[in-house]
Amino acid sequence: MPVKRRYFDWAAAAPPDPLPAPGPFGNPSSRHTEGRRAREELERSRARCAAVLGTVPENLYFTSGGTEANALVLHSLLLRRGSGSLLYSAAEHPSVRENAESLSRLGKKVLPVEVEADGGVSRRGLRRALEKAENPRMAAIMGVNNETGRVTDIPALAGVLREAGGTIHLHCDLVQQAGKLPLGSALDEADSAAFSAHKLGGPRSVGLLFLRRPLEALYAGGGQERGLRPGTENVDGAAALADCLERRALPGRLGEEEAALRWKALITGLRSLERCTLIPADRQAEDPRFSPWILQLAFDKIPGEVMVRALDEAGFAASTGSACSSAKQERPVLSAMGLDPKTAFEGFRLSQGWSTEMEDIEALLEALQTIAKKW
Amino acid sequence: MPVKRRYFDWAAAAPPDPLPAPGPFGNPSSRHTEGRRAREELERSRARCAAVLGTVPENLYFTSGGTEANALVLHSLLLRRGSGSLLYSAAEHPSVRENAESLSRLGKKVLPVEVEADGGVSRRGLRRALEKAENPRMAAIMGVNNETGRVTDIPALAGVLREAGGTIHLHCDLVQQAGKLPLGSALDEADSAAFSAHKLGGPRSVGLLFLRRPLEALYAGGGQERGLRPGTENVDGAAALADCLERRALPGRLGEEEAALRWKALITGLRSLERCTLIPADRQAEDPRFSPWILQLAFDKIPGEVMVRALDEAGFAASTGSACSSAKQERPVLSAMGLDPKTAFEGFRLSQGWSTEMEDIEALLEALQTIAKKW
Repeated sequence: MPVKRRYFDWAAAAPPDPLPAPGPFGNPSSRHTEGRRAREELERSRARCAAVLGTVPENLYFTSGGTEANALVLHSLLLRRGSGSLLYSAAEHPSVRENAESLSRLGKKVLPVEVEADGGVSRRGLRRALEKAENPRMAAIMGVNNETGRVTDIPALAGVLREAGGTIHLHCDLVQQAGKLPLGSALDEADSAAFSAHKLGGPRSVGLLFLRRPLEALYAGGGQERGLRPGTENVDGAAALADCLERRALPGRLGEEEAALRWKALITGLRSLERCTLIPADRQAEDPRFSPWILQLAFDKIPGEVMVRALDEAGFAASTGSACSSAKQERPVLSAMGLDPKTAFEGFRLSQGWSTEMEDIEALLEALQTIAKKW
Repeated sequence: MPVKRRYFDWAAAAPPDPLPAPGPFGNPSSRHTEGRRAREELERSRARCAAVLGTVPENLYFTSGGTEANALVLHSLLLRRGSGSLLYSAAEHPSVRENAESLSRLGKKVLPVEVEADGGVSRRGLRRALEKAENPRMAAIMGVNNETGRVTDIPALAGVLREAGGTIHLHCDLVQQAGKLPLGSALDEADSAAFSAHKLGGPRSVGLLFLRRPLEALYAGGGQERGLRPGTENVDGAAALADCLERRALPGRLGEEEAALRWKALITGLRSLERCTLIPADRQAEDPRFSPWILQLAFDKIPGEVMVRALDEAGFAASTGSACSSAKQERPVLSAMGLDPKTAFEGFRLSQGWSTEMEDIEALLEALQTIAKKW
């Protein structure tokens, strides 16, 4: 009998909802009836996304995903005159961190903001980075960390940026926040933000960029999305994104309270398991610093890779770190937290979603206990 | 009774085939069963695309579309050391031309290659540009022009680049060639080439980059597509692209002979219409210089925009120039051909596809005649 699969890798990909029926097929840039119908559908989807996010459609740009939304904002710095520098949290997703490194190779000044032991950017940490930075122009700080679930206090950090004077653009990767936790306070403060459909039950290759004021984009083409994101618009993808935002990201539909109950049960259970360390070690069963959808942990003397394989054989999908950096051995987020290399090497991630049930948590705890005994 | 719609804007967007059933939903970068299944499906799609294109899977990278495939290659120049310059045909699609301009703003030397009156790049034209260019490193020359249908003799131009010595990377936008005309000789000579699914009946937001040797990409992230194109892989999109390449782009499935018969009827009919000028004026009913899927033309004293609107009201979808530049008034491709501004202003494009029938051509000729009489 095949093992029942229980999925704990929602931070990498959510099981997709059925796609909406295909919309008008015309090219939205075409002036004929087919094109106009496609344009209307696209703008309807943009307005629906704006309503969910509490913004105006003019501030939203459809992209090919969260990664591209992050890259568009960061690369726009290449077109700015002068020597402004980029700050980015040392715990950012690779789509921010590696683009920052790419900018650095092209001569832009970039500076990682050190994170605390719990993976968060503190006011003090940001102030220190601002003191070191030459003419800071942009800060990229994610809303919810994809490896640890650490929730950033965006309004507090926005306040620090304002104190610093000048106009420092605050970009927030909200890919792990949308559909999981309220977005309001982050979106009120951010100058730009990135979203991805496929973490919300939507299709791959669709994302959204929130942008309070237009930016100049490096990546050019046919002028689509008001010159910001070229290429024929993905009309059906935009409709699917609007669908999943309405389905999951509206206040009251996040399911974060049920998620918190399940995570409390998981964390309480894990705390009683031998050899198990939560990352950070002081993470509590109900801990307001963390998202109740993501957990990083380690078992003494079981490498993360081995644990992920053992769990997989037992029917559970889990991962080490970000799927987006699975090809690499390093764990830059855990290193940035100052975690010792041994525990970082043992670290792995569990993440839940809207169809996770308490029974799955119980089965997971049992499986972890069995694996820990065997190894 | 509503007017029957007849679609003559296939170069902007093709009516999509039904999507294949969704494949495995996991993140292909994840190591668990769900992820591995998605990875296998993705690599199966890559192998299928490679078989159609007569190349190896290692040379293919999935992108979010043709525009991105073009941009990835051009922007890689930013990471190359030294002062190498980029040549690009003056008749390129905006996704090449505008990225070249973007590179120029960042200090890269770029030089348009002048085109002949028929819109083609000649050996002589390319030689002249090479003489003017400082240390040429890359030449971007499209296979089939999206506005005029002019077919480039890629092997001849590749020969000129070889004569020039050094190693000049030849990039070919083959978006309007795949599924329409054989690809073999262009792909044999190109160092890289761009393809788009949605011109072939596939979905938006999926494209393909052929790359003979790896390039370094500016746009960074999670290392997907061997570091060339970051972001969670669009597994279902890749499968849909493989489907439509197999369905339309294999030799023997292009339908180019039937298309040529229909275009011959169209062009013969148009040549007998008063006030009608083909662009270029010497384009023949059967003209090996041009793709039998695209036609640029003008009616004396009827602005292109007006003609497109009048055709739309009569039930026909046509366009002025590229949908990707419809927001702008200029017609850079026609200007590059040395066309007088009046005719350029009157220019519009007809393009056909696999479901176009001779009856549609007859109805179109009749409608054009009626419109020309009215205006």
